[in-house]
Amino acid sequence: MWNKGLIIGWIWSCCLATVAFGQQHPTLTLTKEGVQDIRKQMPQAPLFMETLEQMQQKIDKVVREEIAVPVPKDPAGGYTHEKHKENSRLMYQASVLYQLTGEQKYAGFVTELLEAYAEMYPTLLEHPIKKSYAPGKLFWQLLNESVWLVYVAQAYDGVYDYLTEKQRERITTDLLKPFAHFLSAENPEVFNRIHNHGVWAVAAVGMTGYVLEDQALVNKALYGMELTAGIAHKEKGEAGFYTHLDALFSPDGYYTEGPYYHRYALTPFMLFALAIENNEPKRQIFKYRDGILLKTVETLLQLTNVDGTFFPFNDAIKGMDYTTSSLVAGVDLLYAYGKKDPALLSIVEEQNTVLLNQAGLNVALALADGKQQPFNRTSLVITDGSSGDEGGIGILRTGKGKEQWTTSMKYTSHGLSHGHFDKLSLLMYEGAQEILQDYGAVRYVNVKQKEGGRYLPENKTWAHQTIAHNTLIVDETSHYDGDKRKSSKHHGVLVYAQQEKEFQALYAMDTTAYSGVRMGRKLVMIEGTSDREAVMLDVFSAESEEVHQYDLAYHYQGQVMNADFIESTANQQMQVLGQSNGYQHLWKEGEGISQESNTTFTWLKGNRFYSIASINETGTRYLLGRLGANDPKFNLRRDPVLIQRRTGKHARFINVIIPHGGRNQVTELTNRTETPIAEVKELTLMKGYEGVTITWKNGEELQVFWSTEKTMTKDKHQIEYKGYKYQWEGPVYVSAMK
Amino acid sequence: MWNKGLIIGWIWSCCLATVAFGQQHPTLTLTKEGVQDIRKQMPQAPLFMETLEQMQQKIDKVVREEIAVPVPKDPAGGYTHEKHKENSRLMYQASVLYQLTGEQKYAGFVTELLEAYAEMYPTLLEHPIKKSYAPGKLFWQLLNESVWLVYVAQAYDGVYDYLTEKQRERITTDLLKPFAHFLSAENPEVFNRIHNHGVWAVAAVGMTGYVLEDQALVNKALYGMELTAGIAHKEKGEAGFYTHLDALFSPDGYYTEGPYYHRYALTPFMLFALAIENNEPKRQIFKYRDGILLKTVETLLQLTNVDGTFFPFNDAIKGMDYTTSSLVAGVDLLYAYGKKDPALLSIVEEQNTVLLNQAGLNVALALADGKQQPFNRTSLVITDGSSGDEGGIGILRTGKGKEQWTTSMKYTSHGLSHGHFDKLSLLMYEGAQEILQDYGAVRYVNVKQKEGGRYLPENKTWAHQTIAHNTLIVDETSHYDGDKRKSSKHHGVLVYAQQEKEFQALYAMDTTAYSGVRMGRKLVMIEGTSDREAVMLDVFSAESEEVHQYDLAYHYQGQVMNADFIESTANQQMQVLGQSNGYQHLWKEGEGISQESNTTFTWLKGNRFYSIASINETGTRYLLGRLGANDPKFNLRRDPVLIQRRTGKHARFINVIIPHGGRNQVTELTNRTETPIAEVKELTLMKGYEGVTITWKNGEELQVFWSTEKTMTKDKHQIEYKGYKYQWEGPVYVSAMK
Repeated sequence: MWNKGLIIGWIWSCCLATVAFGQQHPTLTLTKEGVQDIRKQMPQAPLFMETLEQMQQKIDKVVREEIAVPVPKDPAGGYTHEKHKENSRLMYQASVLYQLTGEQKYAGFVTELLEAYAEMYPTLLEHPIKKSYAPGKLFWQLLNESVWLVYVAQAYDGVYDYLTEKQRERITTDLLKPFAHFLSAENPEVFNRIHNHGVWAVAAVGMTGYVLEDQALVNKALYGMELTAGIAHKEKGEAGFYTHLDALFSPDGYYTEGPYYHRYALTPFMLFALAIENNEPKRQIFKYRDGILLKTVETLLQLTNVDGTFFPFNDAIKGMDYTTSSLVAGVDLLYAYGKKDPALLSIVEEQNTVLLNQAGLNVALALADGKQQPFNRTSLVITDGSSGDEGGIGILRTGKGKEQWTTSMKYTSHGLSHGHFDKLSLLMYEGAQEILQDYGAVRYVNVKQKEGGRYLPENKTWAHQTIAHNTLIVDETSHYDGDKRKSSKHHGVLVYAQQEKEFQALYAMDTTAYSGVRMGRKLVMIEGTSDREAVMLDVFSAESEEVHQYDLAYHYQGQVMNADFIESTANQQMQVLGQSNGYQHLWKEGEGISQESNTTFTWLKGNRFYSIASINETGTRYLLGRLGANDPKFNLRRDPVLIQRRTGKHARFINVIIPHGGRNQVTELTNRTETPIAEVKELTLMKGYEGVTITWKNGEELQVFWSTEKTMTKDKHQIEYKGYKYQWEGPVYVSAMK
Repeated sequence: MWNKGLIIGWIWSCCLATVAFGQQHPTLTLTKEGVQDIRKQMPQAPLFMETLEQMQQKIDKVVREEIAVPVPKDPAGGYTHEKHKENSRLMYQASVLYQLTGEQKYAGFVTELLEAYAEMYPTLLEHPIKKSYAPGKLFWQLLNESVWLVYVAQAYDGVYDYLTEKQRERITTDLLKPFAHFLSAENPEVFNRIHNHGVWAVAAVGMTGYVLEDQALVNKALYGMELTAGIAHKEKGEAGFYTHLDALFSPDGYYTEGPYYHRYALTPFMLFALAIENNEPKRQIFKYRDGILLKTVETLLQLTNVDGTFFPFNDAIKGMDYTTSSLVAGVDLLYAYGKKDPALLSIVEEQNTVLLNQAGLNVALALADGKQQPFNRTSLVITDGSSGDEGGIGILRTGKGKEQWTTSMKYTSHGLSHGHFDKLSLLMYEGAQEILQDYGAVRYVNVKQKEGGRYLPENKTWAHQTIAHNTLIVDETSHYDGDKRKSSKHHGVLVYAQQEKEFQALYAMDTTAYSGVRMGRKLVMIEGTSDREAVMLDVFSAESEEVHQYDLAYHYQGQVMNADFIESTANQQMQVLGQSNGYQHLWKEGEGISQESNTTFTWLKGNRFYSIASINETGTRYLLGRLGANDPKFNLRRDPVLIQRRTGKHARFINVIIPHGGRNQVTELTNRTETPIAEVKELTLMKGYEGVTITWKNGEELQVFWSTEKTMTKDKHQIEYKGYKYQWEGPVYVSAMK
């Protein structure tokens, strides 16, 4: 059964790797034996071959052109910035091609560039664009510098055998060593920072350490730089790769900055881990902390919508999805070092590319064997915090495949510098379409005109603010008064998550975001039947000893179909909605009150209709807001928001959200353009219980009951309502009557 | 070579059809012999079989359910409206299934419905919803009534043989005859109206005439109703089908209301024509007026963008495309009765369905033989007006396939009641993406909440107005003061259309839209090279003896990337841009002037960047507008517009529009985010000549020269510029220098 060559390769690899620094090259993300194995087997792995050939096509063009190593000058998006970025990738890719094809032209190209950089690097001072807290030399910020070295260390590793001793020495002395020194000893604050900038720096320096056989450098990367010279490295310190693995992930693998940065930080985690595994397999790095490196990839995959796009929590550019290169690495390595889950292979199919190393080969071979299974996203709760006790994220999902209806609620910790003030905020999708959006970040990555692609001022003044999220805003201020330091000390709390056949429930609370205000949000997602749609009950309560203004924001998108209770207030002029905390960016398009017991707000997005049916309380004001005020550089999208506003000590917002009907723009047929819900009514029940009745226009009635006191899964309940007795276990109960 | 059965079928069909009213059933869009032929051959035509099976799956479900023929009550979008619409289609489809499969259940279903309608119809008075100038009985407007009868006449035809004599008599006496009478004698104004409402009425009555063997009805349909009783029908009158064929189409096949209504009116044209062909082949209806019925389908196909969507001229709902059922009929019949153009088959592939008659069979057989060729859209000029002398539309296209860059300019006549005040307006697409949009219509078809799906008030106050289009607005008024009657008397004029290898030019004028103002717009689309993008030069001139305010509007979409010369004017409050003629719906988001010789406005749509480089004249104001003011029911999209404003007797706007670069949201790579154009400069040339230089950042220079006096294709020109001599033929010349 065993291929003889394979066994030998495996034994070699094992024995070599335990002997650190007696190694042959390559030794980082490829190994010498791995390369021999790949060359033998790759013809049987079509996706591997396609990836290789695509890279070859690209690099074959490039190696014919003259190289360019310009003096650093431009900001992100500018020529020199993009060129140096590109060069690092090209060197890496050409070095891989050299390994896998043996063609000298690739190694020659890498050598030429490495020598050019070795010539220029000693002449460089700090980058002329002074916009970063940590400027680089090739780039305006150190972060890009780290990324560059991660690729170039691998490139050097790949052509090591091709280089003369003299070339090696020059590249080592004039480029790699001082570069790693600059990233570590000269910038210890960044290097020791527990943050994605730190991970990249650590990985760059650690990989350079392995390739240069410099144990001191490797140790710095693993355990952190001592800020005071002369103190021995701790086995586990407050910095370095191990600390990143301990501190940045929850036991569930949630990365505290959120999915967008999770994805970004994943590359150095994965590549450095692979280098550790190849050089020091005794460390069993992929098993460290119960296999946190693999777990975190699984978790990130669950934090995507059906189209593979990441939930845009915190600072996040929308549209980023799991076909990104870091997830190619993540998924391939998860498959290779994990349980060989065949569902991962269907993601690889969508990625349509693999790592050009042994992990990628394994994945491509499994795909060639037709082992792929569908990837399922499930309802789940994910903890935040290095000990898993700093809140988290709950995700409710119903329906299958590409039509799945997905809602998440966020009650995490702040999420470092990229965190938003968004406690108890929702995201909601139906299939690939957003129903309730998170704005994401105000940034146009790598667009020179937009401040060189950096975060724009409105990212802080709008996107970070609470009003930019689907949650409750008290007194037009943001959570924790918009103070990141305060916010970083707190987190929300999950009270319960309950999963039944007919419904799912999630209840989270927060008592810290607003001093003296207890907030709780209860979601009950009720499955659809052949007679009616699935529906989401959203109960948001706030209690205080003081009188407050409570605003519940729903960031719908698309076109208003029906809002009879809201009058347009925007005729000759339109007023800004508020003065600060993000409200200064919203125009007031409409305002209204209603005398009815319920209000229904219906909108059209794409070809689907959505409604929010609300229990109306006297004094509730409904506001329609529109982004775009105080936006001098036209940086914001003109997106809308519905705000439900109440004033008092307490407020309880009961809303039922439902997708319904549709239209076809070619046949012009429509159906169920109006909400199918006739009424939503709050129930008066015995002490300790609350509930809601949802009545459909077809006559069907749903009773939703919940206990306000006993919230454990095994708690038993019995109540009477309208002469019927109801008995159940667990905090929430849903009963359908016709 | 000839299949014997086929020849016999063909001979029979020919001989039968010449004997009008001795016919067998079916006789309208199917024929008895055709059905025999289809049954024989359809197993060899997979697409035909798929279409049939899909219809069967749908109707098999329906025939098991109870029928519903409710008393008319609801507006468009409401239950009774949708039900009667649906019933007519179901009857038609079931009758086709009966013919093609012979299964009695289908005929039984049709019979049951026909009898139910025959029972109800005599009891009906005018429809309770009084919103139409021509109310119906089953529906709120007569138009729906006509459409209903077009389908039901065919349904009756399909089950004729199945019905007893008594059933036939009852359905004829109580339903079909009075129904046709209501559409013609009782509503002569609609029946004789040269308009899509008239075409539907005529087709319904004519098809009913054939099926009832009632020559008088057929004649009314062909030649129109006499408004005064007792006067004999004219051979060619001022109404009826022939008049529609004469008056509604230009010799180029342009339908005066524009593509959206063209598509809508096409169904009755095509179906009635087929019925005429099957019953009176001597009329050679498909050859009438040089084959206008086939020509008009070809023209409509050219009035689509690369994704098959129709240009949204005049009142038009965006998203409608050539997979719509009327174009299925149109394309199948064009193939069957035209030149068997294999490019049509690739459209059939996209439609993925065929007519279930002989034309559809032919198409499906040709597809099964693999005869399809790509469909090419070309640059062309299409005349408007029944004699082809009422202006028209010019279309410039460059690039191939799905990436084609398309610009159209409209200088047609008004276009009846659905026309817009949009002389010299542009539409611009790159691939499927709109670069400069026409708003389309303000209407949500069949959405009950939106006034039952009717045109909304903002359709007149915004969408009809000149400011809603990419053209020049003088003194904030619309063309012809927004007076449809005035507008209907005039049209624009094509001065020239020139097509060369390196560029295409189009020049149209209008002197009627604004009293005392001569307007001319010149487009020069210059092909791209490997070094630079394709580019569009847009020169809009206006001349008058009086001082006017000239506004040139560009309806861009997406996000502003760069507009340094425009300051946001929208902080604490935002003002409306004007008081009437559509300006009352626009907010003023920004305003600015520039001291530079050029200004550049760049925006991002999807993942592509677009720039407009403008020659700046002292006193030019740049305004950013945003839709949404005075929109009490939130009917309008919040779309943006850039306005260039000048005041004086004359104004000449010189703009260069260019798509460039792009971004990838997953790799986050961007390129050419800034305009590649360095400068646009007007040239001073010898008398009778004008010109522009476009200088690229890469140093390339393009000189564009044109004659202001000699505008014929064969005119020869010679000028000197900067010491060089230039010689050319035709009005415009483009010279590239590096």
